[in-house]
Amino acid sequence: MQNSIILTITCPVRVGIVAAVSGFLTAHEGFIIEAAQYGDPDSQRFFQRIVFRRGDHSPSIEEFRQLFGPIAERFGMDFQMHDAARKTRVAILVSKFGHCLNDLLHRHQSGTLNAEVVTVISNHPDMRALVEWHGIDYHHLPVTAVTKRDQERQIEAVLREKGVELTVLARYMQVLSPELSAALSGRCINIHHSFLPSFKGAKPYHQAHARGVKLIGATAHYVTDALDEGPIIDQEVSPVDHTYTADDYVKIGSDIESVVLARALRYHTEHRVLVNGMKTVVFK
Amino acid sequence: MQNSIILTITCPVRVGIVAAVSGFLTAHEGFIIEAAQYGDPDSQRFFQRIVFRRGDHSPSIEEFRQLFGPIAERFGMDFQMHDAARKTRVAILVSKFGHCLNDLLHRHQSGTLNAEVVTVISNHPDMRALVEWHGIDYHHLPVTAVTKRDQERQIEAVLREKGVELTVLARYMQVLSPELSAALSGRCINIHHSFLPSFKGAKPYHQAHARGVKLIGATAHYVTDALDEGPIIDQEVSPVDHTYTADDYVKIGSDIESVVLARALRYHTEHRVLVNGMKTVVFK
Amino acid sequence: MQNSIILTITCPVRVGIVAAVSGFLTAHEGFIIEAAQYGDPDSQRFFQRIVFRRGDHSPSIEEFRQLFGPIAERFGMDFQMHDAARKTRVAILVSKFGHCLNDLLHRHQSGTLNAEVVTVISNHPDMRALVEWHGIDYHHLPVTAVTKRDQERQIEAVLREKGVELTVLARYMQVLSPELSAALSGRCINIHHSFLPSFKGAKPYHQAHARGVKLIGATAHYVTDALDEGPIIDQEVSPVDHTYTADDYVKIGSDIESVVLARALRYHTEHRVLVNGMKTVVFK
Amino acid sequence: MQNSIILTITCPVRVGIVAAVSGFLTAHEGFIIEAAQYGDPDSQRFFQRIVFRRGDHSPSIEEFRQLFGPIAERFGMDFQMHDAARKTRVAILVSKFGHCLNDLLHRHQSGTLNAEVVTVISNHPDMRALVEWHGIDYHHLPVTAVTKRDQERQIEAVLREKGVELTVLARYMQVLSPELSAALSGRCINIHHSFLPSFKGAKPYHQAHARGVKLIGATAHYVTDALDEGPIIDQEVSPVDHTYTADDYVKIGSDIESVVLARALRYHTEHRVLVNGMKTVVFK
Repeated sequence: MQNSIILTITCPVRVGIVAAVSGFLTAHEGFIIEAAQYGDPDSQRFFQRIVFRRGDHSPSIEEFRQLFGPIAERFGMDFQMHDAARKTRVAILVSKFGHCLNDLLHRHQSGTLNAEVVTVISNHPDMRALVEWHGIDYHHLPVTAVTKRDQERQIEAVLREKGVELTVLARYMQVLSPELSAALSGRCINIHHSFLPSFKGAKPYHQAHARGVKLIGATAHYVTDALDEGPIIDQEVSPVDHTYTADDYVKIGSDIESVVLARALRYHTEHRVLVNGMKTVVFK
Repeated sequence: MQNSIILTITCPVRVGIVAAVSGFLTAHEGFIIEAAQYGDPDSQRFFQRIVFRRGDHSPSIEEFRQLFGPIAERFGMDFQMHDAARKTRVAILVSKFGHCLNDLLHRHQSGTLNAEVVTVISNHPDMRALVEWHGIDYHHLPVTAVTKRDQERQIEAVLREKGVELTVLARYMQVLSPELSAALSGRCINIHHSFLPSFKGAKPYHQAHARGVKLIGATAHYVTDALDEGPIIDQEVSPVDHTYTADDYVKIGSDIESVVLARALRYHTEHRVLVNGMKTVVFK
Repeated sequence: MQNSIILTITCPVRVGIVAAVSGFLTAHEGFIIEAAQYGDPDSQRFFQRIVFRRGDHSPSIEEFRQLFGPIAERFGMDFQMHDAARKTRVAILVSKFGHCLNDLLHRHQSGTLNAEVVTVISNHPDMRALVEWHGIDYHHLPVTAVTKRDQERQIEAVLREKGVELTVLARYMQVLSPELSAALSGRCINIHHSFLPSFKGAKPYHQAHARGVKLIGATAHYVTDALDEGPIIDQEVSPVDHTYTADDYVKIGSDIESVVLARALRYHTEHRVLVNGMKTVVFK
Repeated sequence: MQNSIILTITCPVRVGIVAAVSGFLTAHEGFIIEAAQYGDPDSQRFFQRIVFRRGDHSPSIEEFRQLFGPIAERFGMDFQMHDAARKTRVAILVSKFGHCLNDLLHRHQSGTLNAEVVTVISNHPDMRALVEWHGIDYHHLPVTAVTKRDQERQIEAVLREKGVELTVLARYMQVLSPELSAALSGRCINIHHSFLPSFKGAKPYHQAHARGVKLIGATAHYVTDALDEGPIIDQEVSPVDHTYTADDYVKIGSDIESVVLARALRYHTEHRVLVNGMKTVVFK
């Protein structure tokens, strides 16, 4: 991915977008490696993701951004250009269940996570040894109902200081305040341990067990100020039967959670996810 | 399955049940082909399903039922004995979507459905040709809000007359009245076109599309008087992405519906499903 | 899909293809509805599928084909343009297992199959009643080892006479001769009842049962003269366990076969499948 | 699982087994918690797994084993009784890919692995830091073609010294010699990174990529002296498409491998797997 740029575009549906963009890239010696697009018939919004390689005489990424300005303006585009080789700076928030954290740290260490984990924050001390063994800062920030906003301000300070671009709630068992949710909008992914919209809120595996479902699931979604209502990025399920206890659900579910969260993280950090109102466009 | 009997048992958890039952069968030359059991730690109810083959000097099924009486009484058992070779008499109710009906009729015709479809009832005339081509009676019983209970009484008359043991709602788009639901309790399976408990009620695929889920599903469950709340027998899902319209969901979902309904029907007619409060025990 | 054209392109990877094609379409008032592309790093071949809507002053599809000639020549493209509203003319070949045939005919009748089934050919008489009830011609062409090439020439005559564009082997239990395989190359889809490349050849479910696998599968692929070796279009699996007999595999497998074959048929008739040597590019 | 015993039985199919066993348990105040059985119509072998809780006046496990002897003899049974609370002693063998190892160690540490990992052995030094951080012995035993049998004797010495009951090949990239395979027969699980029997031997993901399959898989199986031919315990698959490189297969596959291996390990250590010739009976 050396010398490549990922361009994402959102704009109203119109004739000529693809021609304008690809003409622009060809004119500046950009060679298109991947391209995907989607026009939503409901919202009449157009979404595009292009990965292109810079040629020998191509402009720099900063120049590309500037040169693209007039086209963006003509079509009313929101656009972003990312250096494909640059890793997203990620903070992981966790409480006491360490399976998602451990999974992400292992991917981080073995070089298969397309992200730089720059800090781990927790309201509990339990994961410190694991995190520090990986050579990553661990911030233990306890929280009570009374201190919630204070603790969140501390979190925000860490995120700012570390230049965090994406916050991952890897079984962080605190509901973010509307203020923090808003501040992290579009830059915060949560793993919820049910197949949303079933079983929102607390103890979803126990809810699922009580209902007698035959599949349990996990959902990775962007955090919004409506609890477990944010745009869904990915979901997965696993079969269960009557012999499984709610505790078995927790064990089986933890495998699905790890896989779904890692996948959502990859989609996000490869800039494959574009938000479309309450939904997502995911260019896999 | 010639000369075999399926015994199902529900009773409070106690020591000695398995020994008493298997001792009884051995004493009467019953050879156990399949056996499955489950003790629910929550409800403290015990569930068992045994398939046994009659020996040369075994009693008849009627005698077996009688002889088993004292054991059943001792342990407080509800029990049933079914001739394994006898096919359950089934009525199918349908409206305008014919995919589940067609799937069941094809299985019926090719001999892979463990059931005798004795009648098809519909509030629309559309499926008459298909059903009659299969040599099965078709009852067109139109319905309006005003005539609902009258129409249901006509349905009940057909079910009675045909000796129906199981009623299958194969995309029958009318909500049964509490009276009819109660009358068919435990003997009526519905296919709901969502992954319950998500998206109860009308137009679940459109609800799912609006929410932007990444998997859609179907649920086969027993009908109760609480809409889409009955004990779940089986569920299945299929992946979707942002490019699928609600109409695509309908198409993809119809395949899942057919498969899940056929599977639930097989479980029921092989006497593999025991109801446990609001849940099911399914001995696959 | 009224007034829309599906353009598929295969050519060597080069700079400027996307810009040239989208520029061409914009110049002739073609509005791009869907677009997908892929450059294979191994074969250095480029694949593209574009669906565009003709504008008020756009050329006809015949003129579009002609006008596109110089671009195709410049980039060494193989290309096709299809009227998106036109249904592919399909022949179904079948033997004695009718589940795939029944499934396709039901989709055909209910309008969800993007194809016109113009004839059904079989080496057995069994499916005649079903097919003729659907108002479709049924050709019973028996075959023996000795008469194989003769029978195949009869098949070819029917395909020619009916203007068949795609031949579907829906559990047709005869191996096509190399001559017929070659004649139908890229225009003939087979459903094989295993997860290829496991269990090629005869009785794959019995092979799978003997091996004790924990998942069984089905594979839709293009027919080539190497048995069960053609480019794979789609695959699916279903779990099994030790209690399933080989006959159970046959029953369960038949559901997977129907679904996979219908899906492959949809991909092909929507011109989503491009052959890449021994593999396929499928733009879902 | 305190005070509970897991009884597994294999013997020829005969009348009266279930009654004899359950009568025996009842007579000694054993309360049956779980029971599963299967009679294989092909091999005419009977398999049973029973979990029972000892009563206040029940014999000890050693006495139970002795008392059961006459019944075992009468029916020609192979049987085992395991203390359900006792954890199996496990050795993990690994080479350079650490994802399965890391996954198992995390489950070990968080208490969800029903096993005691007593040693890790590797032909490479890479995983030492991870393993020792978990407080587990790491044996680095390099190997060449010439030293293979010597190294294997060192492995056997470690296994003996540590009292290892199950050896897990967690992406150990050496083929065991026939001698070692035989010595570990039934006590050694391998994870193969393909959906067996497809793609045996080396580089299965690259084989799968070259063939153009649409699903890739992983298989956990007992090791025998025939490479990748041993009895299969569990399998899983994941969808891929034309855009995935062989390296992508490796990444995606590693998630499936971890999950399947952990599941097979759980089945084995809960004594749910009984070998039936070249196949397995798995009582889930």
